[in-house]
Amino acid sequence: MHETTRLAGLLQERINDTLGRHREALAPLGPDAGAVLDEATQFLQGGKRFRAQFAVLGYRAIRQLDVSGDVDAEFGAVLDAACSLELFHAAALIHDDIIDRSDTRRGRPATHRSFAAMHRDSGLRGDADHFGTASALLVGDLLQSWADELMQAACAAVDRERGDRARVHFNRMRSEVAVGQYLDVLEEQQPRFAPHNEQLERSTRVLVYKSAKYSVEAPLLVGAALAGATLEQEAPLAAFGLPVGVAFQLRDDLLGVFGDEQVTGKPAGDDLIEGKRTVLVTLTRETLPHTQQNIFDELLGTDLDVEDVRMLQRTIRESGAVEEVEGMITRNVDRAVGALQGSPVRPDAAHLLAQLAERAAQRTA
Amino acid sequence: MHETTRLAGLLQERINDTLGRHREALAPLGPDAGAVLDEATQFLQGGKRFRAQFAVLGYRAIRQLDVSGDVDAEFGAVLDAACSLELFHAAALIHDDIIDRSDTRRGRPATHRSFAAMHRDSGLRGDADHFGTASALLVGDLLQSWADELMQAACAAVDRERGDRARVHFNRMRSEVAVGQYLDVLEEQQPRFAPHNEQLERSTRVLVYKSAKYSVEAPLLVGAALAGATLEQEAPLAAFGLPVGVAFQLRDDLLGVFGDEQVTGKPAGDDLIEGKRTVLVTLTRETLPHTQQNIFDELLGTDLDVEDVRMLQRTIRESGAVEEVEGMITRNVDRAVGALQGSPVRPDAAHLLAQLAERAAQRTA
Repeated sequence: MHETTRLAGLLQERINDTLGRHREALAPLGPDAGAVLDEATQFLQGGKRFRAQFAVLGYRAIRQLDVSGDVDAEFGAVLDAACSLELFHAAALIHDDIIDRSDTRRGRPATHRSFAAMHRDSGLRGDADHFGTASALLVGDLLQSWADELMQAACAAVDRERGDRARVHFNRMRSEVAVGQYLDVLEEQQPRFAPHNEQLERSTRVLVYKSAKYSVEAPLLVGAALAGATLEQEAPLAAFGLPVGVAFQLRDDLLGVFGDEQVTGKPAGDDLIEGKRTVLVTLTRETLPHTQQNIFDELLGTDLDVEDVRMLQRTIRESGAVEEVEGMITRNVDRAVGALQGSPVRPDAAHLLAQLAERAAQRTA
Repeated sequence: MHETTRLAGLLQERINDTLGRHREALAPLGPDAGAVLDEATQFLQGGKRFRAQFAVLGYRAIRQLDVSGDVDAEFGAVLDAACSLELFHAAALIHDDIIDRSDTRRGRPATHRSFAAMHRDSGLRGDADHFGTASALLVGDLLQSWADELMQAACAAVDRERGDRARVHFNRMRSEVAVGQYLDVLEEQQPRFAPHNEQLERSTRVLVYKSAKYSVEAPLLVGAALAGATLEQEAPLAAFGLPVGVAFQLRDDLLGVFGDEQVTGKPAGDDLIEGKRTVLVTLTRETLPHTQQNIFDELLGTDLDVEDVRMLQRTIRESGAVEEVEGMITRNVDRAVGALQGSPVRPDAAHLLAQLAERAAQRTA
C-alpha cells in the first residue's frame, strides 16, 4: 500500500509540475488566461488514476521498477506516460461532460458549468451556458495537446523502438475512444432498441471501444511497450487487459444506475437520465413483458425525477440483470487473471495486476 | 505556379491516404463510424492550405527541396508536417464553428450543422443540434490526434535534434492557439470595451496568439526546424512570419466585415454578428462621437439583419479604419519582406516567401 501512496504522490507532483511549466510558458498571454490554467489544475487534483496505475504495472510486467526508489530517467519516462494518460483522460471527461450535459464531475461542477458560473459571476454579456461550453471545449483541447507532449517526452526517454511501439498503442487508443464515444452518443439517439442480440452486440462494441480498451488495455500496453515488451509479452497483457476493462465498464454501468452520489460525484441514476443503452439496460429489457418494456423504453433518456429513477432501479434489480452483470464482472476478472498464469509476465507484477483488476472491478466510485 | 499546383496535389493525396488508413484501422468499429470519416474527408477537401505552404517554405528557407522531384523520405517528412498542420487546422475550425455557432464553413454546412442535419434526416430521437455539437466535438478531437500522429511521423523521419525542435514549435503553437481562442471568446463577452489603448492592446494580443503566430510564424518555424535551422536562421523567419501573420489576420478582420459570402464561404458581416472585438472594430469606435459609439457598441454581437450589417459596414468604412488597417497590412508585409533581406535564408525561398506573404495579405477568402 505504501507503494501505491508513493506512486500517487509522484504522479500528482509531476502533473502539477507540468501544469506549472505551462502556466509560465503562457504568461505572455496575460492574466485572463489564468482561469484556464486554474480549472485544469483543479480538475487534475482528483481522479482514481486507474489508467496511470495500469500503465506503471504494464511496465513492471516486463521490466523491474522500484517504485519506492529514486526517479531516474527510466522511471521518469514511465511517470510521464502515466501522467499523459491522466491528462488525456481529463480532456476526454471534460468533453464528455459537454456531450452528456453533465452538471458535476468528481464532486465538483463540470468544467463547462464552472465557466458558465464564472460568466454569471463576473457580469459578462451573452449566453453564460454557451460561454461555459466554449471554454470547456478549449480546456479539453489544451489538455489533449499537453497529454501528447508528455507522451512524447516519455517515448523520447527510452529506446527508439520502444517509444515507437508505445506511440502505436497511444495513437490507436485516441482514435478508438473518440469514435467509440461517437457510437455511444449515436446509440442513445436511436429511435428504438435493436432486436436483443443485435442490441447486445452494439452495446458491447461501445463498451469495448469507449471504455474497456481505453481504460485498461491501452494503458497497460503503453507501459509494457515502454519497457520493451515483445509481441509475445504483449499478448497475455492484452488478454488480461481487455476483460478487466470490460469488468471495469460493467461496474461503471452498475454505478451509473445504483451509485451513491456522495461517492461517485455523479447524480444517482445518471445513465438512466442520459438514456445510455448499456449492457445492463439491454439485459433488463429482454426480461420485461412487452407493455413494461415499452414503458421502460419511453422513460429512458428523459428528465426523470427521483421517483422515476427509483422505479427504474427497482425494475432493473428485479429483472435479475444486476446479478447477471455481477456474474459477468466476476467471470471477466477470473478470465483476466487466468491469462497471466504461465505467461512471461513478471510474477510480482502479475500479483499486483490481479489486485488492481479486483479494485477496478469492485470499486464504488 | 506549376510547383504550387503539384504541392497542392501532393498534400491532398497525402491527406486522403492518411484518412484512408484511419478508415481501415477503424473498420472493426462498424459501419456507423463511417459518418465521422466521411465528414473529416469532405472537410479536408477544401481550404487554402496557407499553413502547409508556409511549412514547406520554412523548410526551403534552410534546405533545398525540389517540389517537382520525387517524394523521398525527406520530402515525405515535410509533407507529413504540412498535412499535420492542415489536419490540426481543420480540427480547430470545427471546434471554432461550435464556439462561434457558425452555420457554414468553406461554403458547406459547418460540421456540427451537418451532423444535426443527419440526425433530423435519419429520424433519431433527442436534440438534433446537441447531437451536432457532440459529433463535431469528437470529429475535432479525432483530427487533433491524427494531426499529432502525422507530426510524429514527420519528426521521426529526420535527425532527432531537428525533430525535437520542430515539436517545440508545434507544441507551443497548440497551447497558444487554444488559449488565444479562449481570450477571443472572453473578449467578446466583456460588458464594455476597455479604454482605447488598453482595448487595442487586448485585441492585438488575441490577433497575435489566435492567428498570427498560429497561421504563419509557427508553420514556418516547424518547417525550418525540420530542415535543421539554427537559432540564427530561425530569428529572421520569425521576424518575417509574425508580421505576415498579423497582416493575414488584419485581412481576415476586413473579410469578416466586408467579405463576399460567395468567396469566403462565410456570411457577410459575420464578425459583426459574433461581436468580435477586432483591431478594425476598435479603431472604428475610437473615431465615433459618444452617442454613435454607444449605438455601435449596442448593435455589435447581436442578431443583425442585412440592413444593420450594411449600416455598420458603412460606419466602419466612413470612420477611416479600413484605410488604416490596409495601411497596417502593407506596412507589416513590408517589414516582413525587409526581415529576410541580408538574412541567411536561401534566396529562392525568400523570393517565394515574399510572394506568399503578398497572397496571404491580399486574399479575398
